[in-house]
Amino acid sequence: MYLCLLFNCLTMEKRPLILLSNDDGYMAPGIQILIEVLRPFGDLLVVAPHSGRSGMSGAITVKVPLNLILVTEEEGLKIYRSNGTPVDCVKLALNQLCKDRKPDIVFSGINHGTNSSVAIHYSGTLGAVMEACMNGIPAVGFSLDDHTLKADFEPSKPFIAKIAAQVLKNGLPDGHCLNVNIPAIPILKGIRLCRQAKGRWVEEFDVRQHPNGGNYYWLTGHFQNHEPLAQDTDMFAMEQGYISVVPSQIDMTAYPLLEQMKSWNL
Amino acid sequence: MYLCLLFNCLTMEKRPLILLSNDDGYMAPGIQILIEVLRPFGDLLVVAPHSGRSGMSGAITVKVPLNLILVTEEEGLKIYRSNGTPVDCVKLALNQLCKDRKPDIVFSGINHGTNSSVAIHYSGTLGAVMEACMNGIPAVGFSLDDHTLKADFEPSKPFIAKIAAQVLKNGLPDGHCLNVNIPAIPILKGIRLCRQAKGRWVEEFDVRQHPNGGNYYWLTGHFQNHEPLAQDTDMFAMEQGYISVVPSQIDMTAYPLLEQMKSWNL
Repeated sequence: MYLCLLFNCLTMEKRPLILLSNDDGYMAPGIQILIEVLRPFGDLLVVAPHSGRSGMSGAITVKVPLNLILVTEEEGLKIYRSNGTPVDCVKLALNQLCKDRKPDIVFSGINHGTNSSVAIHYSGTLGAVMEACMNGIPAVGFSLDDHTLKADFEPSKPFIAKIAAQVLKNGLPDGHCLNVNIPAIPILKGIRLCRQAKGRWVEEFDVRQHPNGGNYYWLTGHFQNHEPLAQDTDMFAMEQGYISVVPSQIDMTAYPLLEQMKSWNL
Repeated sequence: MYLCLLFNCLTMEKRPLILLSNDDGYMAPGIQILIEVLRPFGDLLVVAPHSGRSGMSGAITVKVPLNLILVTEEEGLKIYRSNGTPVDCVKLALNQLCKDRKPDIVFSGINHGTNSSVAIHYSGTLGAVMEACMNGIPAVGFSLDDHTLKADFEPSKPFIAKIAAQVLKNGLPDGHCLNVNIPAIPILKGIRLCRQAKGRWVEEFDVRQHPNGGNYYWLTGHFQNHEPLAQDTDMFAMEQGYISVVPSQIDMTAYPLLEQMKSWNL
C-alpha cells in the first residue's frame, strides 16, 4: 500500500516539500533515520536545533536573537541548524526559507524517548508539530520509547514510511496533527489509532546539597498511568507492542465544561 | 455574589492553600496584584521565576539543576523564586513545598500580555496552569492585554476576585483549567465564556546583519485572527470589552479525526 503511495509521490509533477525538525538536535540519530526514510517522498528541508532541546514544549525565544546556519546542501536535501527551540526552527523555516513555497508537510523527530499521554505538553518534538499545525500545514511527530543514543530505529522504518505516505495522500484537517509513539521492541505488531492516556509524572526531584550551602534540584521522576487498563489509549497500545497514533488538535477548548459553566453566572 | 463566596472562604475551618505562579517573574506587577486580590481568600504560596520567562510554554528544565529560594515569609504569605520555568516552579512547589498539603487551587499571572487564541500554546503563564491541571488541581491563568510595565490592573481586580471565588466554590473537573484574558481598558463590561479563536502569528522575524557577517533574527510579528466575526471566541469577547474565560483541557485528542482516520487502514 505505502509503496503505491510512495510511487505516487515519486511520479508527482512536483515533488512534495517536506520540512523536518526535532528537539534532539540536527545530528541526532532519530532525525537522520527520518531523513533516510522520507527522502524518497520529496525534497527535504531540515531545520533543527544545533543541540538537544528536550522538554522545550512550545517555547519560543524572545530575549536573544536566533541564528540560522546552513550545514549541508545536496540534491533534494538541505540541512540548517539554529540556536532556537524546535518552535523557533519551524518559524524560521516557514518565514525565512519557505517564503516562495510553503512545505507540504512537516515531520518532527524521531524523538529519543516517548511523547505519549501528557508528554505531548512538555515535548519540543510536538512543539514543532503544533507550530506547523497552527500554520495550516499537516504535521506528524514521531517518538521512539528509548532515550539512549543506541536506540534501534530499524523496526520503525516501514511504519514511518506508511504513516508519512498516508498523510501525504490524505492530508489532515486544519488545526490537526498526529502524535506517533513507537515502542522500542524488535518486532512491532502494527499501528493503532488511540486517544491520549491520562496520567502524570510523580516524585520529580533529586535534591542535592550545594558545596556552598543550600539545596539544588534535578528534575527526575517516573510516569504514572492513571488508566492502565484503558485499551483505547496510546500507552496501552504501546504496551501491547503497537505503534500509537493520536490525532491531536490545536483547539484546547473544553466544550462540555463551557456549557456546564453557564450555570455559574459569571 | 463573590463577596458571599469570599465570606465562605474567610469562615472555612481551614483556609484554602493557594499556589501562585507566573512567567513574568516574582517581582512583576501582575503577580503582585494577584497576591493583593487573593490574599483574603486563603494562605498564599508564591513560587515564580526569578526573572521573566515569557514564551516558555510547558517547557521543563532538564540540563541544569534548579534552585528554590525563599524571598519573604509572613502570616498567610510565602514567596519563593526559582531559576526554573513556570512549569518547573509548579513542580518544585508541589513536590518540595506542598508534600504535606496539596494546594486547593493554582492561579497564574496576571500575565503582562494577552494569552488568548493559540497563544495558550506558547504561554509560560498557561504552562504553569496546565502543570497544576495535570496534577489534579483546579487552575486558572489570568492575562491582561498590555505588555508594558505601567499596565493598569485596577479594573480587573473585582472580576479576578469573582472568578477566583467561583472556582474555589465549584472546583473544576479533573484535567480542566481556565484561560482568562482581560482587555486593557478602564471599564470592563463583564465576563464571557468563550472558545479559543482560530488564528496565527505572521511576519515573525526582524532580520539584522551581524557585525562579523551573517544574519541574526529577532522573533517578532503580529497576530492574525482567522475568524474575527465569530462571536463565541475569546478574541471577539475581548474586542467587545469583555473578559474572556476559555475552559480548556489537557486532553488534546481530536476524537472526530480519530473516527475519520479509521478509513485510512493504517
